[in-house]
Amino acid sequence: MDLTQKNSLEENQKEKTYAQYYMQEAIKEADKAAKHSEVPIGCVIVNNHQIIARSFDTMESDSSVLSHAEIKAIKIASELLKNWRLIGCDLFVTVEPCIMCMGAIILSRIQSVFYGVQNEKTGAFSSPYSISNKGLKVRVYQGIQEEVIKKQLSSFFETRR
Amino acid sequence: MDLTQKNSLEENQKEKTYAQYYMQEAIKEADKAAKHSEVPIGCVIVNNHQIIARSFDTMESDSSVLSHAEIKAIKIASELLKNWRLIGCDLFVTVEPCIMCMGAIILSRIQSVFYGVQNEKTGAFSSPYSISNKGLKVRVYQGIQEEVIKKQLSSFFETRR
Repeated sequence: MDLTQKNSLEENQKEKTYAQYYMQEAIKEADKAAKHSEVPIGCVIVNNHQIIARSFDTMESDSSVLSHAEIKAIKIASELLKNWRLIGCDLFVTVEPCIMCMGAIILSRIQSVFYGVQNEKTGAFSSPYSISNKGLKVRVYQGIQEEVIKKQLSSFFETRR
Repeated sequence: MDLTQKNSLEENQKEKTYAQYYMQEAIKEADKAAKHSEVPIGCVIVNNHQIIARSFDTMESDSSVLSHAEIKAIKIASELLKNWRLIGCDLFVTVEPCIMCMGAIILSRIQSVFYGVQNEKTGAFSSPYSISNKGLKVRVYQGIQEEVIKKQLSSFFETRR
């Protein structure tokens, strides 16, 4: 469930740089959400080292639970590839996906999910509604750019007090 | 988790008639899916005894995992009510929701889910990816019109052999 699962140290380092680079892009998307008074959650989908989808949470302005960043990104990527199977794609999201988003990730055959901070309220793995990871094929890496994202979230909620 | 949880027999009977009536409408939607060569899964959302959303699975023709019947129905209902909170609404779907759909149902604050047949491959409660129902607020009733729906599914898959 985390980067330390990798066998080779070198490969670990490569994966870490890869994860941090694209998480930075997801953080930029989360910034856009905050500017729209939405909870700062951002997402990118990467295929073959190219970003093919960028999105941020717009649940409040769209009045739709389907406007979570991950769902929007999966929609964009599927439209682009004209396929609901996003084989070989990696998804980066600043906050742990909820079970709806994790369900969409599993259905899409996404290869790996990288997330920053845990969500103990609604996270697919950390909340009371957690899913079993029995037979889960998608690889999940957590804690990427965690401190940066924690600051981003707390600064947003401070302005909303 | 099922109709027998109700205390009064009379209330149980009322709930049963209610469930069967609207499940019949979901079955009609599933028939439309089959006519479009999609797996026959249909859904309706009911608010105050009125159907406010009807939908069927179009995942293949839309090339999108987001075209599950439940997701489409939630989208229609939220647009109609201009609110992501579908408080007091009940959702009827012919097949057990997957975790993506169950996640959307929980987020939407839907009151009750009624489903027909279990889905041991991807169902939110019956599959290896099952979710914990710890603290689950939505009421879940299963086995509604089960035999009719089983026949509908097997007759679809027979024609596809």
